Amino acid sequence: MAKQRVLTGITTTGTPHLGNYVGAIRPAIEASRDASMESFFFLADYHALIKCQDPALVRQSTKEIAATWLALGLDTDKAVFYRQSDIPEIPELTWVLNCNAAKGLMNRAHAYKAAVQANEEAGEDPDFAVTMGLFSYPVLMAADILMFNAHHIPVGKDQIQHVEMARDIAGRFNHNFADVFTLPEAVVDDSVAVLQGLDGRKMSKSYSNTIPLFLTEKQLKKHINKIKTNLLEPGEPKDPDDSTVFQVWSAFADEAETARMRGEFEKGIAWGEAKKQLFELVNAEIGEARERYTQLMDDPGYIEETLLKGAERAREHSSALIAKVREAVGISAIR
Amino acid sequence: MAKQRVLTGITTTGTPHLGNYVGAIRPAIEASRDASMESFFFLADYHALIKCQDPALVRQSTKEIAATWLALGLDTDKAVFYRQSDIPEIPELTWVLNCNAAKGLMNRAHAYKAAVQANEEAGEDPDFAVTMGLFSYPVLMAADILMFNAHHIPVGKDQIQHVEMARDIAGRFNHNFADVFTLPEAVVDDSVAVLQGLDGRKMSKSYSNTIPLFLTEKQLKKHINKIKTNLLEPGEPKDPDDSTVFQVWSAFADEAETARMRGEFEKGIAWGEAKKQLFELVNAEIGEARERYTQLMDDPGYIEETLLKGAERAREHSSALIAKVREAVGISAIR
Repeated sequence: MAKQRVLTGITTTGTPHLGNYVGAIRPAIEASRDASMESFFFLADYHALIKCQDPALVRQSTKEIAATWLALGLDTDKAVFYRQSDIPEIPELTWVLNCNAAKGLMNRAHAYKAAVQANEEAGEDPDFAVTMGLFSYPVLMAADILMFNAHHIPVGKDQIQHVEMARDIAGRFNHNFADVFTLPEAVVDDSVAVLQGLDGRKMSKSYSNTIPLFLTEKQLKKHINKIKTNLLEPGEPKDPDDSTVFQVWSAFADEAETARMRGEFEKGIAWGEAKKQLFELVNAEIGEARERYTQLMDDPGYIEETLLKGAERAREHSSALIAKVREAVGISAIR
Repeated sequence: MAKQRVLTGITTTGTPHLGNYVGAIRPAIEASRDASMESFFFLADYHALIKCQDPALVRQSTKEIAATWLALGLDTDKAVFYRQSDIPEIPELTWVLNCNAAKGLMNRAHAYKAAVQANEEAGEDPDFAVTMGLFSYPVLMAADILMFNAHHIPVGKDQIQHVEMARDIAGRFNHNFADVFTLPEAVVDDSVAVLQGLDGRKMSKSYSNTIPLFLTEKQLKKHINKIKTNLLEPGEPKDPDDSTVFQVWSAFADEAETARMRGEFEKGIAWGEAKKQLFELVNAEIGEARERYTQLMDDPGYIEETLLKGAERAREHSSALIAKVREAVGISAIR
């Protein structure tokens, strides 16, 4: 049987944090070791441009995210790891798909609708400050996916719509021209942990409540100490299921260690002690990778070379696919 | 002083007709001989995909249009003559410009508004059958123009808006990032003839009233004989200013010959005779080019080679420009 192809993009607008690690990077790298799968991971820098007009930030984030995945042991001989902007076939396919994508589909996109709603609540024009990037990015995302004929797109629930749009556009193209595209499927893995941040809400850059993944030990300790807790004293029993400390703990601990900590909570472990143990647990899991990360950040040439090799592998697929697309729509050498 | 750069695109969805020749191709080729100008002419095949889902037609039209410009004596050592789809920097720039283009701008585009109005009149959803290609093509057009830092865009009145949109998007990018783009200007040449078609309306593919440019002599004669006239007999004075025959005549004749024919009309020239003379006039102007056209259509390899050479020259510009754009927005080698 042919290998199942999985594709994941990472927008290059921030510094990877523990939430990204637990919810996306760790499971993706694990899945990429499965011999029945073919993984495509890419740095989505064209997507970064939609919301970020700070070139230094896009540049830095691209570097940090690439170094993070490599430091965490992504095997780039197996997984295809590339930068979106190294694949010229992607924006080209985006244009061809534009011609096969109903505008009505974009009108219903969550991100666009949220922007319109916010504008209306503020008494602004519905399209105030909405760019064509924000409005049309589901077509770019369809190109990202369809370019590599990916079968499975692991997504959070809020992203299912994007994969459905890609299916819709692919189906329309296949119907209008030729059977070129695989119809992708969204895969929602409910078992993947959504990590809580310092304030107990979902850990997210937009809430400024993150713990960056590769802090120094000292900084990591400091951040973990900032996790919000209640005022219960040492010795007073604590509810693990209402505690961010415990929630983060269980994202890193195995079953036995999780059960042990649950017991400690019931016995009234001091917050300081729980946090100390949490620091040690997290630090043990990521300590080695942090070393590699620091080395990689000092060796930009190596990261670049790795990405270019990945792009070369990606383009073996994308150039073959765009040739089919071009032939199907009537773009070809004069003959 | 630096040369003024002029840019014109030709959508590859039809067979060139006398109206295209008189209104666009002939003046463009003439202008390209002006040593103070640098001309960029391109086959807009990505634009063709917006309205045309017939690959054979796009392919054939691309070939015919390329052969037409070459047959009419376009000097491709002077003018840069290329196929849009040979320039991967164009769709890439389109995406970057999307992120700098207000959606509100597209809401006001003539072609989109006309589609919405037609839908509303038909009782349909406003966006019925509107694709993202139709909605967003002004951004592609902005990329076509801004990619080559063109100063002057010769346009018909209905196209002024596109150039204004390109200016708006360029200004916004320059403001947000760096002064990368020249602000283009629309140039409307009112002296350029708008040719009437067989039925007296503007000659246009959409009215099916065209006289294709490179018919055989016999077919050309036949088409000219089909030009609509009134029932006035030979000897009865005829109004030249109400006659398509005279209108086409004056697009091909010099001043003296135009004055002479005006006299013939007043003296009551027979329609058959006027059409015979018109055929001879047109045929004399395009006869040699027709020979070359036929040869070129039999030599697709030569057309292809010429377009690829043009693309190489165009890409000297486009690759330098996209490098500036990428650096400005934060897409670059890891460093």
